[in-house]
Amino acid sequence: MNELAKGVGAGAFTRRHLLERLAAMGGSAMLLAGMDALGFGIGSAMAAPPKLEGKPKKNKVLVLGAGNAGLAAAYELTQAGYQVTVVEARSFAGGRAQTARKGFRLTELGGTEQVCDYDEGLYLNHGPWRIPYHHHSTLHYTKKFGVPLELFNNDNDASFIYFEKGKGPLAGKPIRKREIVADTLGYSSEILAKLSQQKALNTELSDADREQLIEFLVHFGALDKKDLSYKGVPGRGFVVDPGAGTNPGPGTPTTPYKFADVLNSGLWHMVQGISEWDQQRTMFQPFNGMEQIPKAIAKNLPDGMIKFSTEVQQIRQTPKGVTAMVNGPAGAETLTADWMICTIPLSVLKAIDNGLSQPFKDAMAKCAYAPVGKIGLQMKRRFWEEDHSIYGGHVFCDNPDINNIALPSTGWQSQKGVLLGYYNFGPNAAKVSAKSPADRATMAVDYGQKVFPAYKDSYETSFSVAWHRVKYNLGGWGMWSDEARKSAYPVLCEPDGRIYLAGEHMSYIGGWQAGAFESAWQQVERLHARAMKG
Amino acid sequence: MNELAKGVGAGAFTRRHLLERLAAMGGSAMLLAGMDALGFGIGSAMAAPPKLEGKPKKNKVLVLGAGNAGLAAAYELTQAGYQVTVVEARSFAGGRAQTARKGFRLTELGGTEQVCDYDEGLYLNHGPWRIPYHHHSTLHYTKKFGVPLELFNNDNDASFIYFEKGKGPLAGKPIRKREIVADTLGYSSEILAKLSQQKALNTELSDADREQLIEFLVHFGALDKKDLSYKGVPGRGFVVDPGAGTNPGPGTPTTPYKFADVLNSGLWHMVQGISEWDQQRTMFQPFNGMEQIPKAIAKNLPDGMIKFSTEVQQIRQTPKGVTAMVNGPAGAETLTADWMICTIPLSVLKAIDNGLSQPFKDAMAKCAYAPVGKIGLQMKRRFWEEDHSIYGGHVFCDNPDINNIALPSTGWQSQKGVLLGYYNFGPNAAKVSAKSPADRATMAVDYGQKVFPAYKDSYETSFSVAWHRVKYNLGGWGMWSDEARKSAYPVLCEPDGRIYLAGEHMSYIGGWQAGAFESAWQQVERLHARAMKG
Ligand SMILES: Cc1cc2nc3c(=O)[nH]c(=O)nc-3n(C[C@H](O)[C@H](O)[C@H](O)COP(=O)(O)OP(=O)(O)OC[C@H]3O[C@@H](n4cnc5c(N)ncnc54)[C@H](O)[C@@H]3O)c2cc1C
Ligand SMILES: Cc1cc2nc3c(=O)[nH]c(=O)nc-3n(C[C@H](O)[C@H](O)[C@H](O)COP(=O)(O)OP(=O)(O)OC[C@H]3O[C@@H](n4cnc5c(N)ncnc54)[C@H](O)[C@@H]3O)c2cc1C
Repeated sequence: MNELAKGVGAGAFTRRHLLERLAAMGGSAMLLAGMDALGFGIGSAMAAPPKLEGKPKKNKVLVLGAGNAGLAAAYELTQAGYQVTVVEARSFAGGRAQTARKGFRLTELGGTEQVCDYDEGLYLNHGPWRIPYHHHSTLHYTKKFGVPLELFNNDNDASFIYFEKGKGPLAGKPIRKREIVADTLGYSSEILAKLSQQKALNTELSDADREQLIEFLVHFGALDKKDLSYKGVPGRGFVVDPGAGTNPGPGTPTTPYKFADVLNSGLWHMVQGISEWDQQRTMFQPFNGMEQIPKAIAKNLPDGMIKFSTEVQQIRQTPKGVTAMVNGPAGAETLTADWMICTIPLSVLKAIDNGLSQPFKDAMAKCAYAPVGKIGLQMKRRFWEEDHSIYGGHVFCDNPDINNIALPSTGWQSQKGVLLGYYNFGPNAAKVSAKSPADRATMAVDYGQKVFPAYKDSYETSFSVAWHRVKYNLGGWGMWSDEARKSAYPVLCEPDGRIYLAGEHMSYIGGWQAGAFESAWQQVERLHARAMKG
Repeated sequence: MNELAKGVGAGAFTRRHLLERLAAMGGSAMLLAGMDALGFGIGSAMAAPPKLEGKPKKNKVLVLGAGNAGLAAAYELTQAGYQVTVVEARSFAGGRAQTARKGFRLTELGGTEQVCDYDEGLYLNHGPWRIPYHHHSTLHYTKKFGVPLELFNNDNDASFIYFEKGKGPLAGKPIRKREIVADTLGYSSEILAKLSQQKALNTELSDADREQLIEFLVHFGALDKKDLSYKGVPGRGFVVDPGAGTNPGPGTPTTPYKFADVLNSGLWHMVQGISEWDQQRTMFQPFNGMEQIPKAIAKNLPDGMIKFSTEVQQIRQTPKGVTAMVNGPAGAETLTADWMICTIPLSVLKAIDNGLSQPFKDAMAKCAYAPVGKIGLQMKRRFWEEDHSIYGGHVFCDNPDINNIALPSTGWQSQKGVLLGYYNFGPNAAKVSAKSPADRATMAVDYGQKVFPAYKDSYETSFSVAWHRVKYNLGGWGMWSDEARKSAYPVLCEPDGRIYLAGEHMSYIGGWQAGAFESAWQQVERLHARAMKG
């Protein structure tokens, strides 16, 4: 494993799979995420914002960036009596937590302007799209500000897996996940159960334990109690579903695949024991788009606190305070304050005349940013629901230009829908993002057609994003190698004089909104402790 | 396995588990559901109602019962030009598809009246509560009539399992499902992987297949690639969640239980390979209660078509037509028609002066009805969400008086909620239902307190039902033994003269609304074919 830029990405449909893929690709050091990182970066520790008690001596704070980190910092500081100004380059709050809907505009660096023309009411969360149940900080704000949630269907037994590169008869065909789960687990349970019965086991399990193990395997793998063999299970699906009367009556069950065929297909990559920490059930999304979260926080800030469309161009500090030279609708001006919380992504901050110390600059250089792309395809008919009974979830594909076709977890049974046509990372994101939006759509639609016969005919319009080409972000999320986590990250966790960094990159929940919120909470708490001292 | 009354029940939190339990209980023949039945009764075959073309010669139809079967029959027949009258004993449409909310009244046989006093906006689906993605007929009507759906969270990695009867240190403690899944699958993968490596396998797998199997197990069980051992996995959870900065930074992972402890606890009963066919993701519920489905169908019937609060007391037929003597608000009257579709549950129909043929009567006698109980407890605080991050799903318990504490899949993050305090079957349902509603609540609350520290303090009010004690139902659903499926059920699938039976009991999707809808569709189609002939 390469040392550089090991990191995490909310993007990966499963992190483990992404890592395997990245490892297989080799090459680009920046993109190799380390296996070790899997243990980290994937949870959320603080359930509530810090209590900031007392009256700080110096209370003027400049917050750079009105993404979720900046908004949370501004909100908590304001509640504690601070005088806050937020500077935001974009014309809206939320940063990466954007939602594309009719009229939403995006011009990638070097690209032409895309104007989203989805039908009224349809949208794509082209940035963050799901919230794990243990992201307490994100859920703190949805609760506090009454942002209605709905379940995000992150795991659907009925959805397809589509692998072209495997061997054998299952390659290049959409296969129901339920079939692969049933057969993989059925057959491997059968083998283990039979071995256990033959006492082939050479473990610390007692005879009684072994009996329990066999009982478990019979249950788990749906084995025949008598001969311990796997012969299929109703849960893998029916050729003719059970129904009324005597015809169809009990229906016609499906027949298992051969174990060797399942193994050779590679489809087992999509079968997991426990889901990864940040991909587990239960997951949420806000009704009507992820942007509802930053919108709700912004609405609860004093009017005018955020200076929109105002770009920070220079940062300076003295022992007494901080300044930011900004350029906004009213021209250039210099803002001053006692403290600064800077949530500008490091990818962007590096290139600003930031006046930070050399150790800080060196440390920032060690955080790489992930190329990430998404496309939302508006379909005039929800064929995945109507023709295939697939309601939400993901179709996992082994073409890394696509990775993941995700079906919307909202608007069930309505006429149209926007599905995610690809979710690509690293070199594949770079490659695909070199195409024009129209060509990206063609690529995505051609691919989807292989999975769903009605894809091409149903396609109406697209909106795509390549985050590494988005000004003010220059990447999906920060990635730390093991080495950089040790040598560079801790440097940036400390303030540089009066300047505190916050944002998803300043956490072990990188690539998630919770990382942004919790780093803001932590830095706000530390700033307050210091401000109380004077 | 006993021969009698093998059947299925939507009720079971998992059918397999219910069957195991019933088998373990032995005793009451009526309650022994056969393993064979598992392959059946659990799907839905018809995607759309039959097309009824042409003008029938004799077109007057009496539909008995305005549950989902009766409503669907009435709707489809009306669309096809039939003249329909529906007779319903209750004052509302929907039959079992009821929702208890403020003011809902229920008097069980021999019981006192319960008036539901949940807060405005809160409710309990004390009958049907979830809709599998493959129940095309149920989903046909939600779509056709625009009944808004939301996901029903039927499987939550974060929820607890609470088993008191196992051995060892995990007994009598609420244990997170994710821990048990991770450890059970991790350890069993480890054993199989090691055996495979030692070439202990004596199967038809080739060497290459075996390598793939090991690769799969490493992936599936989260094994150490080098020594193939299971050492835990982030997905099982954290002692301290990962977070911001360097503290908590990466967080503190949890340590696996001992495999023997997991095996002895019995908690592995809740770990399955593929979920059962009718318990799979994805599941739905209508917004604001299951009653929305029958309400929507009823609204689309001509005004006055349903005679409410009108009890069928006698059924007769001649070669030319049918009559029903009914007793309603306007007193007794005799209704006549050319045909009859009778959806009255067999448990009830048996005891009516029904004039059916002797073979029909004999066949009806062979269908047993399941005792089933549910209780909904209103909690003044959603402690399961707030204190434990459990959003929906089930807490499975090994006390069969309780079985299942289910957390609501609606009203996320709001103040109050109604949770399901028990879901019991068979003798346990009979036993619990002998208590007064107040005593049932006490029992349920005392038990829940063992799982959730805030249970008792949060409890406000309850509503409970014992379906076997509910007039016009006398049981949760019909249960067919293998023998009765062969000898009796096919008899009832044919018309008795001009009388057609429909309802969930006339299907292999018993205990599900889809069974009611699809049997209605099937019988309507057959009736129409005959009516076209004259
Ligand atoms: C494709 C994708 C999928 C994701 N999926 C999920 C998910 O499912 N769930 C989840 O929780 N998270 C997800 N994330 C991560 C989540 O979006 C981020 O972690 C979070 O939004 C970052 O917030 P932030 O405040 O740290 O940064 P940002 O939101 O990037 O905020 C930084 C702000 O600084 C502003 N800025 C930049 N430069 C300047 C300047 N010079 N002057 C003034 N302002 C400036 C920017 O405009 C922006 O508003 C995803 C991200 C991506 C890209
Ligand atoms: C506890 C429980 C949980 C369930 N869970 C689910 C679930 O999650 N999902 C799901 O899809 N299904 C579930 N079901 C099953 C579902 O409720 C039934 O399959 C379905 O509602 C049955 O419809 P039906 O029309 O066949 O019968 P019913 O709804 O019982 O309709 C029969 C009608 O006949 C009327 N009637 C009876 N006697 C007379 C008389 N003498 N005169 C006039 N009218 C009379 C009754 O009042 C009633 O309206 C559950 C059922 C129960 C009890």
